[in-house]
Amino acid sequence: MSVNFDIIRTARAILHVTDLEKSREFYVKGLGLIETESDDSAIYLRGLEEHVHHSLVLKKADTPNIEVTSYKVRSEEDLDRLAALFEQKGLKTKWLEEGSQHAVGRALRVQDISGLPVEFFAKMDTAERMLQRYDLYQGAKAQRIDHFNNMVPDVQKAYDFYINDLGFACSEYTDDEDGKLWAAWIHRKPSVHDVAFMNGKGPRVHHVAYWLSDPMALIQGCDVLAALGYADNIERGPARHGLSNAFFLYLRDPDGHRIELYNGDYLTSDPDFKPVRWDLNDKRRQTFWGAEAPDCWFNEASTVLDIETGEQITTEPGKLKQAKPVFVI
Amino acid sequence: MSVNFDIIRTARAILHVTDLEKSREFYVKGLGLIETESDDSAIYLRGLEEHVHHSLVLKKADTPNIEVTSYKVRSEEDLDRLAALFEQKGLKTKWLEEGSQHAVGRALRVQDISGLPVEFFAKMDTAERMLQRYDLYQGAKAQRIDHFNNMVPDVQKAYDFYINDLGFACSEYTDDEDGKLWAAWIHRKPSVHDVAFMNGKGPRVHHVAYWLSDPMALIQGCDVLAALGYADNIERGPARHGLSNAFFLYLRDPDGHRIELYNGDYLTSDPDFKPVRWDLNDKRRQTFWGAEAPDCWFNEASTVLDIETGEQITTEPGKLKQAKPVFVI
Amino acid sequence: MSVNFDIIRTARAILHVTDLEKSREFYVKGLGLIETESDDSAIYLRGLEEHVHHSLVLKKADTPNIEVTSYKVRSEEDLDRLAALFEQKGLKTKWLEEGSQHAVGRALRVQDISGLPVEFFAKMDTAERMLQRYDLYQGAKAQRIDHFNNMVPDVQKAYDFYINDLGFACSEYTDDEDGKLWAAWIHRKPSVHDVAFMNGKGPRVHHVAYWLSDPMALIQGCDVLAALGYADNIERGPARHGLSNAFFLYLRDPDGHRIELYNGDYLTSDPDFKPVRWDLNDKRRQTFWGAEAPDCWFNEASTVLDIETGEQITTEPGKLKQAKPVFVI
Amino acid sequence: MSVNFDIIRTARAILHVTDLEKSREFYVKGLGLIETESDDSAIYLRGLEEHVHHSLVLKKADTPNIEVTSYKVRSEEDLDRLAALFEQKGLKTKWLEEGSQHAVGRALRVQDISGLPVEFFAKMDTAERMLQRYDLYQGAKAQRIDHFNNMVPDVQKAYDFYINDLGFACSEYTDDEDGKLWAAWIHRKPSVHDVAFMNGKGPRVHHVAYWLSDPMALIQGCDVLAALGYADNIERGPARHGLSNAFFLYLRDPDGHRIELYNGDYLTSDPDFKPVRWDLNDKRRQTFWGAEAPDCWFNEASTVLDIETGEQITTEPGKLKQAKPVFVI
Repeated sequence: MSVNFDIIRTARAILHVTDLEKSREFYVKGLGLIETESDDSAIYLRGLEEHVHHSLVLKKADTPNIEVTSYKVRSEEDLDRLAALFEQKGLKTKWLEEGSQHAVGRALRVQDISGLPVEFFAKMDTAERMLQRYDLYQGAKAQRIDHFNNMVPDVQKAYDFYINDLGFACSEYTDDEDGKLWAAWIHRKPSVHDVAFMNGKGPRVHHVAYWLSDPMALIQGCDVLAALGYADNIERGPARHGLSNAFFLYLRDPDGHRIELYNGDYLTSDPDFKPVRWDLNDKRRQTFWGAEAPDCWFNEASTVLDIETGEQITTEPGKLKQAKPVFVI
Repeated sequence: MSVNFDIIRTARAILHVTDLEKSREFYVKGLGLIETESDDSAIYLRGLEEHVHHSLVLKKADTPNIEVTSYKVRSEEDLDRLAALFEQKGLKTKWLEEGSQHAVGRALRVQDISGLPVEFFAKMDTAERMLQRYDLYQGAKAQRIDHFNNMVPDVQKAYDFYINDLGFACSEYTDDEDGKLWAAWIHRKPSVHDVAFMNGKGPRVHHVAYWLSDPMALIQGCDVLAALGYADNIERGPARHGLSNAFFLYLRDPDGHRIELYNGDYLTSDPDFKPVRWDLNDKRRQTFWGAEAPDCWFNEASTVLDIETGEQITTEPGKLKQAKPVFVI
Repeated sequence: MSVNFDIIRTARAILHVTDLEKSREFYVKGLGLIETESDDSAIYLRGLEEHVHHSLVLKKADTPNIEVTSYKVRSEEDLDRLAALFEQKGLKTKWLEEGSQHAVGRALRVQDISGLPVEFFAKMDTAERMLQRYDLYQGAKAQRIDHFNNMVPDVQKAYDFYINDLGFACSEYTDDEDGKLWAAWIHRKPSVHDVAFMNGKGPRVHHVAYWLSDPMALIQGCDVLAALGYADNIERGPARHGLSNAFFLYLRDPDGHRIELYNGDYLTSDPDFKPVRWDLNDKRRQTFWGAEAPDCWFNEASTVLDIETGEQITTEPGKLKQAKPVFVI
Repeated sequence: MSVNFDIIRTARAILHVTDLEKSREFYVKGLGLIETESDDSAIYLRGLEEHVHHSLVLKKADTPNIEVTSYKVRSEEDLDRLAALFEQKGLKTKWLEEGSQHAVGRALRVQDISGLPVEFFAKMDTAERMLQRYDLYQGAKAQRIDHFNNMVPDVQKAYDFYINDLGFACSEYTDDEDGKLWAAWIHRKPSVHDVAFMNGKGPRVHHVAYWLSDPMALIQGCDVLAALGYADNIERGPARHGLSNAFFLYLRDPDGHRIELYNGDYLTSDPDFKPVRWDLNDKRRQTFWGAEAPDCWFNEASTVLDIETGEQITTEPGKLKQAKPVFVI
């Protein structure tokens, strides 16, 4: 990487939700997130190991949307250098000075190369790490935020920008039958991904993922969610991805935002790690154990907002013809 | 119970398979069963905790069928009393004297009230219990045979016979929307079941189930089966049944026989245990976490044989109209 | 078995504790038992799968003792037959008529052959089974009562009485180096045991065991207990017993009563199951993974009471010289 | 960090062992490492997810020692810059040119500030990643090398050198009752550590740790090791560390080298992560669940070699008086 800034990791997402109480039960009792703070307009949540104020903000709104997905950078100077890059590329930027957002330092918001609203910041208030407060563990015991997955019309364009301009590295990717890049999993922290891009109607955020410490937490998450009445919110899984090797569960929150519970990937620290290639139609790619994802998993995702106007961003269809894998059995 | 014999538990099944080598890999490497003995015509398998010669016989045959499902009884006298009962009911019986079957004592075979080929015996050769030979554990680590599930045209008739005449007790059952008995889970050993009957085209054996010691063995079973190339043999799950509370996986063996891996039910020893009633259309009944079973799970099952002629038994459709649950969402 | 009554299973224990509030936190938040009812003098607790009112009674008292350990029998007539047996043997008996104990029917209390206070009853009030209320699971998720373990001066005498007169069956046993019976695990329900007897100062109750659904519940139990401040209450484990194959944890409650969390034994339904013999000094017997039990585990146990006077029963040392295993390394 | 090189992670250890066959069984069948290659003089092993040739070398020798512990760096230039640093500090360095060691590129060996033999390299041959070859998983399923732990006489000196000169960051540390640094856990990859230093007789290597994907792999590891006859090689655990939150097991290999199986720490990517301080005598520090480590765990460790002469390095006692925690109960 030859970039002059250091993006450290996936840091937080801001979800617009229509009913804070309904969302609180789902995220706190179901997923096990810790509520750091809340008021009438927002709930701030963090995972069990997180030493920072939050990794998820639920904001009261009339319509479900994702306001922004955010990355932590190493220093304030990194923010200035990122702003310069986005401006040079002719992409929208907007500064949110320290104090304008609760518990977060100065933040740079941009509309990225795919039109996704993305945020960078270096500072966040700290909070007590609850990792050893096992007496407070609930539901799926979500431990930390892991990654975002976005649907975009042009995966190759997004990939090039994140790899070449932002300094991400690729761990695994998927080609369609014409050899075109259908999806890519890319990272800054040495895991399989901080963000993935999939071909499809976008820009939209497909899901936000939380990392779990072990597979049994995911099984227990299913049991607790079902006991709380959320069986219909379990969209796909539990199963294992071929791509990434993760043991996974996909949930839809009360507003339809998709959350992945995720465990079981591997260390990608080495600069000579060779990205793993998958064929889109390799059945084991999406589910190592064979089960197919439902159509809604390929078609539905959260709409996103313009960083300046707050209006919903218009979507375009995926450029590649194939919207989902085809399995000839 | 006022019967004059003592059926102890589900003991073994004899499956006709078309390729012993293919079946061996699936059952030994995939499910983790121990091969006690084999020759050109049959393989004898047992679970990791089983102190008896086998709980599964794979017999080489031209056509996949289930020859018989067997129960262990307390004593030789119990066999005579069972024979008297079946004869009195006008049902076919057949004795297989000691020595005529490998590793098993004198056996009584019958065609039960639904036409299913069923066997009873009191004696089987013993074998080394491998429970603490953890160095030999493989795949799903199948620990012991647990139960059979049969599709029959008239569940009420089968239920009445097994409860009143054979001394089984009911743990859970399913009624259709007219209040008719659609399925029943009944037991002799104090678990949820030794056998279940479901409304459907029959008599057929829907599945044979093995008990696992814990949920992680099932997850590992999925991983090993997929790595061995059996992803397409995973038909349903992993998930949790509402009915029985079991964490389950349904597999199809290389000949299409269905095997359930099963863990997580409860003790049913008490005579005052009140059977649990479920509505057929209660979505949590079949899968506590919400996912629906595929149609093949409701439609396909193993055909069975006449104890005298060895011919395949003719099937009839289920008497109740509803072939599977309907979920109005 | 040629006895004329049917003891079904281990049913409950009544512990005298000195501080109900302290005990409640340990058993409810730490072990995960459900509180069915309580008042100023007692707390009634049940496991997650139990459909009966309770399996543990904590009674406020000045001194920690175990009042009685109880077994469920099939019918009221079984109680009369048991009373006749104990009277014929010249052992103390006492009837507690229905209504004299909360939530329990008519009960027979006896001082057994070793002087232990033991109770039999056929009826208990029912309670909602919480097995699928995963949202209420806490701590170690204790699922059901499994067995008692008693220290007695003369194991052979206790063994003979329980096997020959009460109809128990032996699953595993331990001989000392002279070939004398040092300990025995015996059962009525088809698990490794409903009760065990060990050579030692007695009669005392060594521990009451609860069954867990899987090993991860035990690991989680350790974490939650430690987070609640009970690290010093963890006496031994987690580890696996060679004898019984159980994955276990031994805890001391706030009054020093020992509780075992237990998972991983096997089905012992078969009348031809051959008991497993272990040498006392076989290191793998007590801990399959090698770690030795601390001396307190061999020396300390709960004192018991006279069923008539309520006085503490006088103890005698174990008849066999060897108080604990000796490992020559 | 202001260093001009980039150490990426813990990469490999070279152990001198006296019997290759005995070691092979322990590491391959017991720990589950994959054997990449071997000959009469050495065995090369890798974890299940490792895409490189090896992370452990077992070299046939007359005496058990640890030849070197190695770190991977980003580039060849990093090696030159590291050599300059060590030379400037007056510490011994030695180059091993590409081709002189099997499967590894040019390597820099040094005697570090504590006298430990340490190696750096940028290149290693690749090997097939076995992460999804679940059919080949064995024993404890060791997934990747995680960290080294060293005993040194002067922890503060080692700490200062690794933090200030080598660019490591501290996640957790232990002070003795005088407020002196007794131990420190420091990292380059964003986990709790790549290396730890503990006060004690040294320089010696206390243990090499492998990361497991989940706690059940560790339980299964215990079972398989015990079934293979290695119960006496289990030195400590399973239990959870307070420090690092890891679920752990300490083993001694056939030559006495200590191996840790390790799972359950957390992400330490953030530059503003505040190191966690523990008192040496806080009982929960070493074992969150309360059990104390045996004396041998504090006293015994592997001796190390001079990078030039191959002679065993002379040890000195730890500078701090307290050799192990004291728990006043």
